[in-house]
Amino acid sequence: MTGGVPRRRGRPARTEAETGPGARERILEAAREEFAERGYDKTSVRGIAKAAGVDPALVHHYFGTKDEVFAAAIEVSFEPALVVPAILGEGKDGVGERLARYFVGVWENPVSRAPLLAILRSALTHEAAAKVLRGFVLRRMLERIAADLDVPDPKFRAELAASHMIGIAILRYVVQVEPLATVDPEEIIEMVAPTLQRYLTEA
Amino acid sequence: MTGGVPRRRGRPARTEAETGPGARERILEAAREEFAERGYDKTSVRGIAKAAGVDPALVHHYFGTKDEVFAAAIEVSFEPALVVPAILGEGKDGVGERLARYFVGVWENPVSRAPLLAILRSALTHEAAAKVLRGFVLRRMLERIAADLDVPDPKFRAELAASHMIGIAILRYVVQVEPLATVDPEEIIEMVAPTLQRYLTEA
Repeated sequence: MTGGVPRRRGRPARTEAETGPGARERILEAAREEFAERGYDKTSVRGIAKAAGVDPALVHHYFGTKDEVFAAAIEVSFEPALVVPAILGEGKDGVGERLARYFVGVWENPVSRAPLLAILRSALTHEAAAKVLRGFVLRRMLERIAADLDVPDPKFRAELAASHMIGIAILRYVVQVEPLATVDPEEIIEMVAPTLQRYLTEA
Repeated sequence: MTGGVPRRRGRPARTEAETGPGARERILEAAREEFAERGYDKTSVRGIAKAAGVDPALVHHYFGTKDEVFAAAIEVSFEPALVVPAILGEGKDGVGERLARYFVGVWENPVSRAPLLAILRSALTHEAAAKVLRGFVLRRMLERIAADLDVPDPKFRAELAASHMIGIAILRYVVQVEPLATVDPEEIIEMVAPTLQRYLTEA
């Protein structure tokens, strides 16, 4: 699986390549690709480990269950822990535009778009994936956004903003309805920014 | 399939029950249920005919291909031909609220919600269904809306409005993220109406 080295059953022997500093990143990269290509349902920890060239036990060691690898793979695409506080931290003025630009940037980049579409597809067709999206991803991300908002029902507001960006991504990239499918991203940002601004800042 | 009456091959003999005035409606109702339960991929004209108690040839006679039955089944849920001109015909004032109320009403009714979610799921996972949604449904519906709008890029504006309502439906009913999943529909309408109003009426 990872070369010609014979394996014994039981606790896996780990080579330096398998456990070295790049292993975690390789696993995440492999997870993104596996989820994007196969969807949530058909992706396994074993398959991710194989693609990353590591033992499945190492995937469990770093991330835990398949659901947790899934959540981590999504977080890599969005980087909400880094990006969201930065966007909101600059203050109310222009926060709608900054957030619209961030989302559109994530979607426009094919590398981050593929796993995100896979997640959305999976969430719409498998309750287990919907649960991950609901629990790990949206809750963490939306709570981060909501925590910095000075509006009534901040979580509801953050969800309204997210719903709009998700709906645009579906019509633009999946259903591919024209002209939305081919319009310049700047036109989307220009129209959507005031909507997000209102949801996130106006009482 | 439709009872004990013996059938000959070739052009099917039609009983009065099969071709009577209720047959078209029974087929549409059966199509909605089949698409909702089985998804686009696993639904067949034969299965719809069986559920409606008619000959498959009658389904073809009334609607054409499976894709066209699919489109007709969606139109029954939305009734855009009746509703959209009525909503827009009342003038600019309050058009955002009327449209938000109409969409939320369609989604809140479990009878119309089930086939619509099935359509969305299918469109996200099968290119054939996405093509139907793009071609028959969104184009017809959005062009109807756009035709009555006095804004730049009316189709783009109509798509932005639709994307928001689709995204809300996904987060509320499929991903079921809180508080959006359980919030009073009136709160959604109140927040979304000004967004739709701006997209559909402001230059």
